[in-house]
Amino acid sequence: MELFKVDSLEQARQKLLRAVKDWMLPTETVNLESSLGRCLAVDLFSTFNIPAFRRSTVDGYAVIAKDTTAAGESIPVILSVKGKVEMGEAADFVLKSGECAEVPTGGMLPEGADAVVMVEYSEPFGRNKAVLYQSAANGENAVQIGEDVREGELLLKQGKRLLPQDIGALAAAGITRVPVYGRPTLTILSTGDELVIPDQKPLPGQIRDINTYALKTLAEKNGFEILHTAIIPDSEETLEHALLSAMQNSDIVAISGGSSQGEKDATRAVIERVSVPGVFTHGLALKPGKPTIIGYDEASRTLLAGLPGHPVSAMMVFELLFSWLLHEMTGSEMPPAVPARISCNLASSPGRLTCWPAKLKWMDFAYTAEPIFGKAGLITTLTKANGYFIVDRNREGLLEGEIVLVHLF
Amino acid sequence: MELFKVDSLEQARQKLLRAVKDWMLPTETVNLESSLGRCLAVDLFSTFNIPAFRRSTVDGYAVIAKDTTAAGESIPVILSVKGKVEMGEAADFVLKSGECAEVPTGGMLPEGADAVVMVEYSEPFGRNKAVLYQSAANGENAVQIGEDVREGELLLKQGKRLLPQDIGALAAAGITRVPVYGRPTLTILSTGDELVIPDQKPLPGQIRDINTYALKTLAEKNGFEILHTAIIPDSEETLEHALLSAMQNSDIVAISGGSSQGEKDATRAVIERVSVPGVFTHGLALKPGKPTIIGYDEASRTLLAGLPGHPVSAMMVFELLFSWLLHEMTGSEMPPAVPARISCNLASSPGRLTCWPAKLKWMDFAYTAEPIFGKAGLITTLTKANGYFIVDRNREGLLEGEIVLVHLF
Repeated sequence: MELFKVDSLEQARQKLLRAVKDWMLPTETVNLESSLGRCLAVDLFSTFNIPAFRRSTVDGYAVIAKDTTAAGESIPVILSVKGKVEMGEAADFVLKSGECAEVPTGGMLPEGADAVVMVEYSEPFGRNKAVLYQSAANGENAVQIGEDVREGELLLKQGKRLLPQDIGALAAAGITRVPVYGRPTLTILSTGDELVIPDQKPLPGQIRDINTYALKTLAEKNGFEILHTAIIPDSEETLEHALLSAMQNSDIVAISGGSSQGEKDATRAVIERVSVPGVFTHGLALKPGKPTIIGYDEASRTLLAGLPGHPVSAMMVFELLFSWLLHEMTGSEMPPAVPARISCNLASSPGRLTCWPAKLKWMDFAYTAEPIFGKAGLITTLTKANGYFIVDRNREGLLEGEIVLVHLF
Repeated sequence: MELFKVDSLEQARQKLLRAVKDWMLPTETVNLESSLGRCLAVDLFSTFNIPAFRRSTVDGYAVIAKDTTAAGESIPVILSVKGKVEMGEAADFVLKSGECAEVPTGGMLPEGADAVVMVEYSEPFGRNKAVLYQSAANGENAVQIGEDVREGELLLKQGKRLLPQDIGALAAAGITRVPVYGRPTLTILSTGDELVIPDQKPLPGQIRDINTYALKTLAEKNGFEILHTAIIPDSEETLEHALLSAMQNSDIVAISGGSSQGEKDATRAVIERVSVPGVFTHGLALKPGKPTIIGYDEASRTLLAGLPGHPVSAMMVFELLFSWLLHEMTGSEMPPAVPARISCNLASSPGRLTCWPAKLKWMDFAYTAEPIFGKAGLITTLTKANGYFIVDRNREGLLEGEIVLVHLF
């Protein structure tokens, strides 16, 4: 058996970054309405002021603030009503001292006006006048030109994963075609003579293919485009054929399965045969996830990953390596994790980073993280968890009550 | 002006629940691969054991544990190799005392065997024997029948929002057609003479429509199906016509806009005209979000909501009322919020629940929540935030360092 040195997660990540240093994530332009969850490919600036005119935030009278300085409950100010501003229309007159204008919430302030007195503090008077019982400071009850976004101001930063409010801001700025990063393409090959598709009843010794479905949806959730999935029997020839075919158009080919040493050796051998420079990570100091192989083919610019066969391990490794890589490449922020106290003492594996699936429970105005114990081969370990936390490889264990950061699924 | 009493958020929620008490959320059956993020409409039980046979978790020799009790580094045990188990095939022989069988990781244990000794602690010996240098306890290095899921066991609970690992578990259980809740249908009407579509350059007094885009994507993200969106001018007749049309096939019609008193009165009047029993909430003790009107039409089973015109208010109210309602109706868990210390003293509005947009910052191994100050009319208040926290209506303010729960956007 070949001896090899496993990589720390950090080493594997650095090697991944070096491998794809020449990758240019393609960008595409999508309609505003289809941009939810996509990552901005450029900094977007506003080409004008938002709002482009001073808007009232209340129903009332637009005034020149200085005219109202003396106004109060007992000594009101009486101004001439120059006109009425209609919603959606320009206020096409100018206020002079001694004048005011009716304005609705959201309406435009006429030129000359610099504040609004709320209708609740006013009374119409005679044919053409208004009595104001409150003063208004310069700018009061109004949104200034460019107060939301100034012309030339950065609206949204490259890498931002677009949320509904971002889409609202783009609408406000009139940006209806949005440049976003393309999705890296992924092929998933599940290997194993024991695998049958979920629709099929397994015979003794067979099991249903889990990884294709779990990895496919995990990758979709994280912004990858799935080109192809297939179950491959334990045959080097078939695997080699499938790999060569997938490498023609996939950015990443994930081979999941190969839990036995024979299968792992076969996966590594095939990756070495089809790629140059080939395998650069021969195992991870990660629990679960040790039997992970990663290689690169420069000619086709394809990352080739042999993921562990256990579903939990395969998902964790995909998350920690490839979802991480996509965040790095797009410059998008990782979503915040939830700090929580662990509910019991926990042994860990010094020298290896440990990923613990955990269930968050809310009690006494704080979260407790209950580690889910279970073999990596059991998919229900993850269905019971909200997320996972990571124990550093220098720790020998954690004490009940220590704070961990739970990354949500 | 009509006097009315505003509802607390809790009161409005209870009224919403009462209004829709006869609603049966439709269910639909989707393919496993399309079920990500959908809510399970039923409890799902496994109809068989997973795994259905005992599987080895290592490469090694399947044994009868008792045969190995004495085995150790210096005094090994020698057993006859009865056969070799191939991946994906039944182990069609029976182990008797003194016998063992080669088995790969994931392979089936033959009848009689109850543990596995790892290949690392073994040596082949002669033609047909193996030397074992370690003992194995009953069950060691094996997954038992039903250890992942037992026959008849609850696999996933009704209301569960399906994650990749849940989809993996369904694949393992052979459930490829998944009963999920249908998406409630929503029509969004943005009202206002001042609104133009984002592609159009606004004239003085006009602004681009934000709410349609922000609300549409927010609702989609939260599991609603958008049937129709439209910009409606400030005309009671046009609004009434649009409402009557939308009520024919929408579960919810959200009218956003109407910030001025005249528009609010018009929206309320139209909702009252088209629905029986009509408006039941005439305002919310919520900041932002006070000018919220909610009504119900029993005949068409439609909820009618007049949301505030300000984008931030409209989004907050939609989130706190309608996204909340959908969680209640499907029985799905709300995602965990992130506890964080606020970064400054904060005044609030006694008597009103306050929603504060906030930006989470990670420092000193804890989160700080920086409240984002800004008028509700400014969409960039939300684009700068990761989430929001709620200040109870009985609080007069919060002190720097107090812990708040940030609900992530």
